Amino acid sequence: MKIALAQINYHIGNFELNTKKIIDHIYLSKGKGADLVVFAELAVCGYPPRDFLEFEDFIALCERSALEIAAHCKDIACIIGLPVKNEVLAGKDLFNAAYFIADGAIKQVVKKTLLPTYDVFDEYRYFEPNAQFNCVEFKGQKIALTICEDLWNINDNPMYISCPMDELILQQPDLMINIAASPFDYHHDEDRIKVLSDNAKKYKLPLFYVNQVGAQTELIFDGGSLVFDQEGELKAEMKYFEEDLQVFEVGEVENVKNKYPAPARDSDIKQIHDALVLGIKDYFQKSGFSKAVLGLSGGIDSAVVCALACEALGAENVMAVLMPSKYSSDHSVKDALDLVNNIGCKHEIIEIKAATEAFDQMLAKPFEGLAFNVTEENIQARCRGIVVMAMSNKFGYILLNTSNKSECAVGYGTLYGDMCGAMSVLGDVYKTQVFELARFINAEREIIPVNTIVKPPSAELRPNQKDSDSLPDYGILDRILFQHIEKKQGAKAIIAQGFDETLVKRILKMVNVAEFKRYQTPPILRVSSKAFGMGRRMPIVGRYMD
Amino acid sequence: MKIALAQINYHIGNFELNTKKIIDHIYLSKGKGADLVVFAELAVCGYPPRDFLEFEDFIALCERSALEIAAHCKDIACIIGLPVKNEVLAGKDLFNAAYFIADGAIKQVVKKTLLPTYDVFDEYRYFEPNAQFNCVEFKGQKIALTICEDLWNINDNPMYISCPMDELILQQPDLMINIAASPFDYHHDEDRIKVLSDNAKKYKLPLFYVNQVGAQTELIFDGGSLVFDQEGELKAEMKYFEEDLQVFEVGEVENVKNKYPAPARDSDIKQIHDALVLGIKDYFQKSGFSKAVLGLSGGIDSAVVCALACEALGAENVMAVLMPSKYSSDHSVKDALDLVNNIGCKHEIIEIKAATEAFDQMLAKPFEGLAFNVTEENIQARCRGIVVMAMSNKFGYILLNTSNKSECAVGYGTLYGDMCGAMSVLGDVYKTQVFELARFINAEREIIPVNTIVKPPSAELRPNQKDSDSLPDYGILDRILFQHIEKKQGAKAIIAQGFDETLVKRILKMVNVAEFKRYQTPPILRVSSKAFGMGRRMPIVGRYMD
Repeated sequence: MKIALAQINYHIGNFELNTKKIIDHIYLSKGKGADLVVFAELAVCGYPPRDFLEFEDFIALCERSALEIAAHCKDIACIIGLPVKNEVLAGKDLFNAAYFIADGAIKQVVKKTLLPTYDVFDEYRYFEPNAQFNCVEFKGQKIALTICEDLWNINDNPMYISCPMDELILQQPDLMINIAASPFDYHHDEDRIKVLSDNAKKYKLPLFYVNQVGAQTELIFDGGSLVFDQEGELKAEMKYFEEDLQVFEVGEVENVKNKYPAPARDSDIKQIHDALVLGIKDYFQKSGFSKAVLGLSGGIDSAVVCALACEALGAENVMAVLMPSKYSSDHSVKDALDLVNNIGCKHEIIEIKAATEAFDQMLAKPFEGLAFNVTEENIQARCRGIVVMAMSNKFGYILLNTSNKSECAVGYGTLYGDMCGAMSVLGDVYKTQVFELARFINAEREIIPVNTIVKPPSAELRPNQKDSDSLPDYGILDRILFQHIEKKQGAKAIIAQGFDETLVKRILKMVNVAEFKRYQTPPILRVSSKAFGMGRRMPIVGRYMD
Repeated sequence: MKIALAQINYHIGNFELNTKKIIDHIYLSKGKGADLVVFAELAVCGYPPRDFLEFEDFIALCERSALEIAAHCKDIACIIGLPVKNEVLAGKDLFNAAYFIADGAIKQVVKKTLLPTYDVFDEYRYFEPNAQFNCVEFKGQKIALTICEDLWNINDNPMYISCPMDELILQQPDLMINIAASPFDYHHDEDRIKVLSDNAKKYKLPLFYVNQVGAQTELIFDGGSLVFDQEGELKAEMKYFEEDLQVFEVGEVENVKNKYPAPARDSDIKQIHDALVLGIKDYFQKSGFSKAVLGLSGGIDSAVVCALACEALGAENVMAVLMPSKYSSDHSVKDALDLVNNIGCKHEIIEIKAATEAFDQMLAKPFEGLAFNVTEENIQARCRGIVVMAMSNKFGYILLNTSNKSECAVGYGTLYGDMCGAMSVLGDVYKTQVFELARFINAEREIIPVNTIVKPPSAELRPNQKDSDSLPDYGILDRILFQHIEKKQGAKAIIAQGFDETLVKRILKMVNVAEFKRYQTPPILRVSSKAFGMGRRMPIVGRYMD
């Protein structure tokens, strides 16, 4: 039996597009001699459909698409993921399910048992867990078909009390298929290979795994569909960050040349780079936009965003706006212009002096006798926000936010100022990683000016300001933030690792106090195991850790 | 046996405050002769603690508080809600639990079975469902103790396949106690009475129900703790929107004079009014702030917010900023000043002309030859945003947002302009309800100027602009929005109710397209069964319904 794995970039709720892509891949697979083509979890509607699932006509459109797809399954079988109604009165109204389709008809429905409800996942919000286990029989083979999380309850600290493969194995299947929607983070490819390999080993079965690819607002699916033999050895690894279609002969998986020792895996920073480029590209394409605008300060964050945007959208579609003030240093404009020249994007220089002076004048009476402080710093940042949003409104550019994760974490940014934007490109990338990204982008030639990389970071909102005036060294800050955010460690545990007590407490307090700002941050492209946004849900008026 | 129900306003993560309040109420209850005092669900840490639950030291602080509380339980027993560790390896790491404490020690742990994971609730994100059922025995009585949702699986379309009381009833309990954290919406008091009464009737047991009170950012808990006899008749209803403590003699519940036919319930609009006042008050108090600022336009939304803020914080703590432009009508400033005079709050008048002219000049080159459009309208709104944020930054005022739910729904508002604010007061109140609120506020004397109520709504961002230029009549708009948002109806179902097809499709498209704006909206005080924010989670790049 030949199995095709179809790794496709879906668009949530775009039934026309998704159905067409699925049908096209059915014919492509048939052309390659496949007996069965496997599509990802919730392929029909895209993942995650979120509260669209609560609308009955959305579910009806899923079912209609499935019937249309089924009509094309002649002389080839297919597996597609979609939400289906729970016909039993008690329990949630839906299942996260897969249809096994053959001879133009839906032959079997397989339902997901383990419903991830943590971090960015909300599946128990919508779905009833499965409690019935049946293999799919096809061409004399018994297939243990599971859906994503169903295979993840395998190692230490299992999150669920049941394990679907422990049920299915009782029926003596010949192979495993797992359909997934597994979002990228820069360690997740390794975790995934480990967990899936452990399943193949535990159940002594070959395993065919297909993932989605493409970005859905903040979540980036990296593809990398996989095949393992019954020893748990990785036999095939499909493309990352691209659509792909490959066909495998089931009985011959063990004869495929072993992938391990594999070629060196892509570095974390290359993975982050590729993920962000795809994240920008898909946000624009799926929203129907093509052009981006951003404020270019001469600093490293906006330089990196500009380079990534040019790569994703083409330099001709990127407008960089330079907005110097009286506190901007001489090198700011020069460094920004050097980047523009290196990269070939459009630019405008718009000084913000007239606006800041106007506000000084308007606020002269209420502010009489009061000293310059963060208020006036914020006014500058907000005047810049107005300028880039005006460019966005007038020309249909989409504003890219340029804040990094370190800033987001400690609240070093101005709401409605530099925190504006339709999408945050670097909001899940710590400052130290932004430097790595800059060096990665410059690997072949200088795109980001060296001076942008080597000069001390500064917001330039008051004379001779440096980030280091109010923040610790980013090398230390980022390590503490990583422990707190990704590793969920409290002050005590972080201090026990050898960090300075006063510093740790100060930073954790800053993180907690900045919650109200992050609530209004644009959606952030997620590249780590714990990004700000939908995957991290904190009270705003809470008192813990201040 | 005498049972005290302690209805308390907790503060999430403020262990010192919560513990002190609980201990105080233990002594108060003892003073009133109670044998047992009952506190709400997750009383120890406040509800909802959200991802604070993922930090081990947070859980340790809950346990430490419980031990401190236990030490005060001499000659009185108590029930407190708190998260407790799941000592079994498999499954989620925590239970949503209750401690039964007597003689200074934790005697029994009762765990929640049904974990609400819908709308604003995320309990399965954190908690393992209970699967063991034991009554609490105390003073010769068997108590069937359940936690909030545990009693809600009773009527049509049950959301769960199990029912905890069906297990507990097998042990022949003498009474039921339910501890809850049940947030307000303007119909929820009636639903709650119905569901709890149905439980008392079904199991033929008296039922003692205690709820939290107070606001936690967007969620407002209304209190209204309840006692039913074994016929399901409501025998006591505690205060709404206030702390309360009442003691009941278990055997005498049936002798209490029947509450039904009850005095007329508070109107929806009075409930909404009281909820919003409490929401504002608690946001400020729990964040450690006392003063609010808002932009006062002369229109009805900002007038109502100003009146509510003055009621919540005292007029002396409210700063209204009038920011006329050349498009402001003569009556705008007059109507706003009339309100200020009626209500006695502080005010400033700051014209925005200097700023808008500065931006016109700064953008003259890139915008050369291009007509005035929404760009320039947004610049005005954003200049006002800068002014009120500057007042906030300079004086420590917290900015209240004044957008209503109708505007939020269709995207009729400017991001980083009138959509600024730390908290949205009316974001869950439709425009037609805002008018009702204004009339309610004016019931005893004219606070909101009549002209503000009777004039046609306008954003006044271009000459002679009216809301009705771009939006349908609010009476129709709000009814369509209600069907779509609260009732989750798609276009087809709404059209089938008799609404115009073109209009319905246009409005639903507007709602869908505005998702990116709502993502960056401030937290919205929730008063309906479906508010924008944490309870409504939509994809941004999704295509459904456009």
